[in-house]
Parts: sequence; structure tokens; C-alpha cells
Amino acid sequence: MINKLVQKIQKTNAPIVVGLDPMLKYIPKQITAKAYAEYGETLEGAAEAIWQFNKAIVDQTYDLIPAVKPQIAMYEQFGIPGLMAFKKTVDYCKSKDLVVIGDIKRGDIGSTSSAYAVGHLGKVQVGSKSYYGFDEDFATVNPYLGSDGVNPFIDVCKEEKKGIFVLVKTSNPSSGEFQDRLVLPEKTDKNMSTPSEGTGSITYTNDNRPLYELVGEQVAKWGAECMGDSYSYVGAVVGATYPEMGKVLRKVMPKSYILVPGYGAQGGKGADLVHFFNEDGLGAIVNSSRGIIAAYQNETYAKFGAENFAEASRQAVEDMITDISQALASRK
Amino acid sequence: MINKLVQKIQKTNAPIVVGLDPMLKYIPKQITAKAYAEYGETLEGAAEAIWQFNKAIVDQTYDLIPAVKPQIAMYEQFGIPGLMAFKKTVDYCKSKDLVVIGDIKRGDIGSTSSAYAVGHLGKVQVGSKSYYGFDEDFATVNPYLGSDGVNPFIDVCKEEKKGIFVLVKTSNPSSGEFQDRLVLPEKTDKNMSTPSEGTGSITYTNDNRPLYELVGEQVAKWGAECMGDSYSYVGAVVGATYPEMGKVLRKVMPKSYILVPGYGAQGGKGADLVHFFNEDGLGAIVNSSRGIIAAYQNETYAKFGAENFAEASRQAVEDMITDISQALASRK
Repeated sequence: MINKLVQKIQKTNAPIVVGLDPMLKYIPKQITAKAYAEYGETLEGAAEAIWQFNKAIVDQTYDLIPAVKPQIAMYEQFGIPGLMAFKKTVDYCKSKDLVVIGDIKRGDIGSTSSAYAVGHLGKVQVGSKSYYGFDEDFATVNPYLGSDGVNPFIDVCKEEKKGIFVLVKTSNPSSGEFQDRLVLPEKTDKNMSTPSEGTGSITYTNDNRPLYELVGEQVAKWGAECMGDSYSYVGAVVGATYPEMGKVLRKVMPKSYILVPGYGAQGGKGADLVHFFNEDGLGAIVNSSRGIIAAYQNETYAKFGAENFAEASRQAVEDMITDISQALASRK
Repeated sequence: MINKLVQKIQKTNAPIVVGLDPMLKYIPKQITAKAYAEYGETLEGAAEAIWQFNKAIVDQTYDLIPAVKPQIAMYEQFGIPGLMAFKKTVDYCKSKDLVVIGDIKRGDIGSTSSAYAVGHLGKVQVGSKSYYGFDEDFATVNPYLGSDGVNPFIDVCKEEKKGIFVLVKTSNPSSGEFQDRLVLPEKTDKNMSTPSEGTGSITYTNDNRPLYELVGEQVAKWGAECMGDSYSYVGAVVGATYPEMGKVLRKVMPKSYILVPGYGAQGGKGADLVHFFNEDGLGAIVNSSRGIIAAYQNETYAKFGAENFAEASRQAVEDMITDISQALASRK
């Protein structure tokens, strides 16, 4: 699937992914009104509105883009009907030959992580038969639990030729609380595992690294054994809002695709993104959610009006592609 | 809800929680056969088997225990029908007045974390109406994204009088990969944020702490403003498999309830658990999943047979309560 993703990025010349993270406030009134008329102001009504909204945007953009990234939380909040809209969206996007990155940020241990992996990327066994649960192409994974949490996903990816993006440095303001903390090198850890009394001094060898870098190194290790033709199917998530860290992490994980959230509404710009890419112009895929799907609510695209919200999304996709292409073309 | 949890623990004298993490291989043939006869070997058939299995165990144990902890991954792997069985299980356990801890390990940022919080603990707005999605009493939360990921849960908890358990030190073998890494104290971080050249030395003040301790300190901070009568409704997850770390974390987070997985099948014993509790005999709730729900498959309870699997679970619950009570009674 990483090969397909790379090929589609090359074919569309668009290293971007549209985040299908619908909130009801983004959905034009004509769509919610119709859904509520049919299902009432219910979870089913909300799910129908989300689905119709997604479908219109996908229909207007699928030829321009390689991939979509539905954020499952935005569906899960509407309970079972919401998750049915998630599944319908995944299936529809796949029928349009889009690569689907399930932004699920799951992570647990052992058999539990296996269950998530099976449910989202693989097939579950029921007696003598097997079934796909949600069947995304990629999933995002939280690394806090270590290899026990990630390896079950990798096992399923190998079998199904799918992939994951591991959270390394997230785009939010407080991501540094833990991710940026400087960690002692492992050899020092070992020296220190016997408690020492009072104060002393240790040699600082410039090896202290922020936690996100350690996680990045681990992603590179996990990924080394999971190579597609040119890139690994174990990728990473690094926020557009931290371009300097992206520059470092690009080198730490040369063969990992980086999924870059935080463009647009969260503040990231095309010029911030160039260091997330490799010299070959590949290696990164930039996500925009609100900036695309709610484009018609933005002053720049107000002329489209709520009636033509999907056309506004198409224009926003084209502008995003131009922004990133120009930034890449003008990098030294 | 933390007050209700504490009261129920005191009333049952059982600081334990039964992990409803059904795998098909735990479910006796008479149940799967009946479910497959009705629904076929389908996702619906698996979901029906899980539901009937859970119901029988809950019916046999609800009077002995304060709480259950369904692990959503085990349901999610069966797609939408699996999640419907999850919802049915949550609702049924609540009808039996059990406190339901949704083991969902979600964590994202801002509006996305809000969506998870709303979907699992709160109400979502649809037009002029509002609905509960899954409606657990507590949820487990992953801290890797920092306060931006946790605060939206806390906001919903305040409104709904519910609670969370934040992952601090997980029970799995590889949890140390990131969680145990020694982190430099923050003042040193600041000194180091300007790049320094070559090697140098820093003063080691014994303040280097493992990451899990920092997360624990943050849990204590988050929890301080979320107090129930005697404990905070911001709790922590600390694995039974790391009793020494539990001892330290108990002191770091004196007012946080600790949810302790890893008892039984994962290797934790009653004697390992005493340091997770405060002097008042409260402050911890110990989870067992496979050890209870699949007790009949264990040699100790083989005499019950697959026919009486739920009675075997009841006996396993009673034995677990005795084990922990004795350990607590005999601690110095």
C-alpha cells in the first residue's frame, strides 16, 4: 500500500491528504436540514448529514488527490450510527481508488493491539470464515506503550500489505510536555539505575535527545524491516507546526513517509513544509482538514457560498497543491 | 462517579474490576454454536456470542464487584456489530449498577479529543437535541499528546461527573522503551534548548526521573482540581507487573485512584499489589480479565467445566478478592 500511495502521489503530483473530519458546524444547512427531515435530530440524522457531506467533497476532489484521512473520533462521537458513517466513508473512498488513512491513534498491548490492527487493517476470524471490520489502508498508532503496542500492527500490515503512521511529534501546542523532554542516553540510564546519593556530575556528551527523536529512531528501526519499493510502510506523524523538528526527524527516519498534520487552520504554511520532504520530492504527505472541507466558510472561498461548498473544497485543494509545489520548487 | 466507585469498593470490600475482554477462544462452544446457528459465522454471530458470554458472567458476578472494564478493542475488531455488542454490554452493566470503565485508551488533540470525550463520557449535540454515544462512567486516556489531549476529557468529566484513568506505566514488557527513559529536569532542559557544541558537563542533582514519573506528576496536577470527596476523578493506570514503580507512583499521586492491570494472567500477584494502595486501604482498583472470564479454561477451575463457565468466573472473583484482602491485611 505504501507503493500505491507513492505512485498516486507521483501521478497526482499532490503530496496531500484531505482530512475528512466532519463537524456538524461545517456542514451546510441544506444538508443537515435534509438529513434531519428524514431521520430527525438524531444520531442517525447526524450520521446521514456527515455521510452526504463527505460524499459531495470526495466526488469533487478525488481526481486531484492521492488519499483521504478520516478522523474516527468525529464519527465515534455519534455512537454506532456515527461509526456506520465512518465505515461508509471508508468504503466509498476506496471505491474511488483513494488511499484511506484511518486516523484512529490506537495503541494498546499484545492481543489488544492485535485486535485493533485486525479490526482496522486486517481480517478477523469467525469460525471458519474471516471478515474485514473497517478495512482502512493505513492507520495512525500511538507509541507510548512501546514495541508491544506497535508490533501487532506491523504483523497485520505485513500480511495485508498495509501500513501505519506512528505518532512522533504531534502538531498541538502542548505536544512538547512529554515529547520534547530531553532524555538521557541509554548507557547513562544504565549507570543510573542504581540509586546514587546526593549530587554528582555526569558527562554530557551531547547525546541527550528529546523523546520525539528517540521515538523517531524507533520508527526507523521498526520501518527498516518493512520496506516497500522505496519507502517503508511504517511511517511517522510529525506536525507542520514544528518545522525545525521536522528537519531533524526527516534525517532520523529517511525511509519513513511522514504524515504532516497542522497545515492551514492549525498554522502550518507551505514554506514550513519543505524540510519534511526528501531530495526526491517524496517522503511526506501533508494533511489539511478544516481548510479543505470547510473552505466555503473561509473568507477566501466565500464567493462559492454554502450551496457550492464542495466546489470551494476543490478550489482549496488546488490552492494547497500549488502552495506546496511552489514551496518545494523554490527550496534551495 | 469517583465517589460512587469508592463507595462500591467499600461496600463490596472488593477493590477489583472484571475486565470484559472477550476473545472468541474464551467463549464456550455451546454459546458460539447457538449464536452461529442464529446469525451464521458472521460478524453478527461473533457479536451475539460475545454479548451472551458477557451477560452470563455479569449475572454471576455483579453482586460481588464494584466495576467492570470492557476493552473496546476486543469488540471493535468485529466492526460495527462488535461495537454494538460493546454498547449493549455497557448498558447492561449499568443496569446492574456496576461502574463501567471503558478501556478505550483514546487520546488526540483539541476538538478531536473533545469528540472522543463526548462520544464515550458525554452527550453530543444534534440540532436542538443531545445524545449519549457510548456512555461509559470512566475512560482510559493516553497522555502522549500532553494537556491538549487530556483537558477535553476533564472538561466533559466535570460536566458529567465522570472520570478518567491516564496511562502512566503500562503492564506490558516493553512499556519501559519510552516510559522508563530518564528525563532531565526541566530547568536543565531550558539551559540546553540553546544548542551547545562538543561535550560538556551538567550538574546531576538526582532530579533525573523516568518519564512515567513525570506523567504521574502531571496526573497529580490535573487531578488536584478534580476532587471528589476523598479521591480525584483523574486517576492513573499503573501495571501490577511493576510493583516498585507502583510504590513510587502511589506517593507521587496520593489522591489519584490507580487502575492496576496485569494481575493474574499477566503475572501480578496479590502480594505485589499492596504498595498500590494507600494506608486507608483505598486508592487502587485491580483488574483481571482472562483470569476471571476464562477461568473455566484454567486448571484450578476445570472442575466447573465449560457448561458452568460463569460459575467458574464467580469462584475466580471470590478467590481474587481473598488474595488481595489477605495481602492487604498482612502488609506491615
